[in-house]
Amino acid sequence: MITVHSWATPNGHKVHIMLEECGLPYRVVPVDIGAGEQFAPDFLRISPNNKIPAIVDDDGPDGRPLTLFESGAILLYLAGKTGMLLPEGDRARYAVLQWLMFQMGSVGPMLGQNHHFRLYAPEKLAYPIQRYTDEARRLYGVMDRQLADSAHIAGPEYSIADIAVFPWLRNWQNQGIAWADYPHLKAWFDRIAERPAVQRGVAVLADRRKPITDEKARENLFGTTQYQRR
Amino acid sequence: MITVHSWATPNGHKVHIMLEECGLPYRVVPVDIGAGEQFAPDFLRISPNNKIPAIVDDDGPDGRPLTLFESGAILLYLAGKTGMLLPEGDRARYAVLQWLMFQMGSVGPMLGQNHHFRLYAPEKLAYPIQRYTDEARRLYGVMDRQLADSAHIAGPEYSIADIAVFPWLRNWQNQGIAWADYPHLKAWFDRIAERPAVQRGVAVLADRRKPITDEKARENLFGTTQYQRR
Repeated sequence: MITVHSWATPNGHKVHIMLEECGLPYRVVPVDIGAGEQFAPDFLRISPNNKIPAIVDDDGPDGRPLTLFESGAILLYLAGKTGMLLPEGDRARYAVLQWLMFQMGSVGPMLGQNHHFRLYAPEKLAYPIQRYTDEARRLYGVMDRQLADSAHIAGPEYSIADIAVFPWLRNWQNQGIAWADYPHLKAWFDRIAERPAVQRGVAVLADRRKPITDEKARENLFGTTQYQRR
Repeated sequence: MITVHSWATPNGHKVHIMLEECGLPYRVVPVDIGAGEQFAPDFLRISPNNKIPAIVDDDGPDGRPLTLFESGAILLYLAGKTGMLLPEGDRARYAVLQWLMFQMGSVGPMLGQNHHFRLYAPEKLAYPIQRYTDEARRLYGVMDRQLADSAHIAGPEYSIADIAVFPWLRNWQNQGIAWADYPHLKAWFDRIAERPAVQRGVAVLADRRKPITDEKARENLFGTTQYQRR
């Protein structure tokens, strides 16, 4: 059995979708990041970066339990465990790794900053909003051009690169983009959204998520709590 | 022969260090990102995200040339090609992948934002500077705690996770941190800095790098040039 310590955020959705696609049995332990549960000592032992998602696989590679954090590493682990959604051939596999890294290094962090300055920062600051909106548009453009020639993000086949990108684009309303500018990306997005496993994955914990409004949640998510932990 | 399209930035250094550690022959093609060379059509064909580094390996996995972008994917490719600096055993390998993803998803993007608001943004904006300084301190703390119990970032052995993190910490003066707060991380940093291959790697293209002062460089790096490309 795989235990997923998670929450209904884009990085959580990636792992929920992958588990659904692979048909692996799993149970979910909610980590309410607005309530500060990511700082609980038991969670930090498996996720020292105080971020969701993290997994514990009772049936690890050597038969012993394995813990793993970072959504990109978890996608690779589940692909390795099941032989699914990561091609075996080197050329196709490195193409997937390349676009997975593009998601991990740019799509996630930069769209995350865009959300922060558009929705959560205490003031609407023009320069950061413009900076991250520009970057969102640039990234959407990169993916749109890629999908003009390719059925999926990293090539002809559906892969963990698609699973990594998709949940971040579900928040497009908060990113200052217009879908009309990215027709190839939009067509891909709509196709991925129709997959039954994707629909089950994004529903996991969705009823637990709350709007970030109170001061305690703001402090847990954006305050100095995190860096004062020693 | 491997051709590296690169510049003397932290993400470039990662690949230069890895090539030096592996003893692979390579040649470097400078991509002057202040001069806008990352938007040249020939470069975009191998790096559609208009970022350095990217590589072309004439002797790819199937004997045909392979192109690859994203520093994290290139590290994995070179480790796979040489059998170096990525453990073969699943448990140790996923530990390295986890910390490599931590670098790709947090250390790189967040320290990069910290540099931007401290050094390059047209005004010194208090809120983003505080946000990214706090995040830098948090990330240094995560790594310091990890290195209290571990000789290297992802376990006892030197790996591509160390190579990925190290170049980003060379700019610590621009990140609002004090090394005295992170003694385990500092001891690790000093040990890595002493490696001859690391010293050769960070010297690659270092004489070509220029301070970002003129308006054209600012526009190429931070302006709307990037997202207006279609």
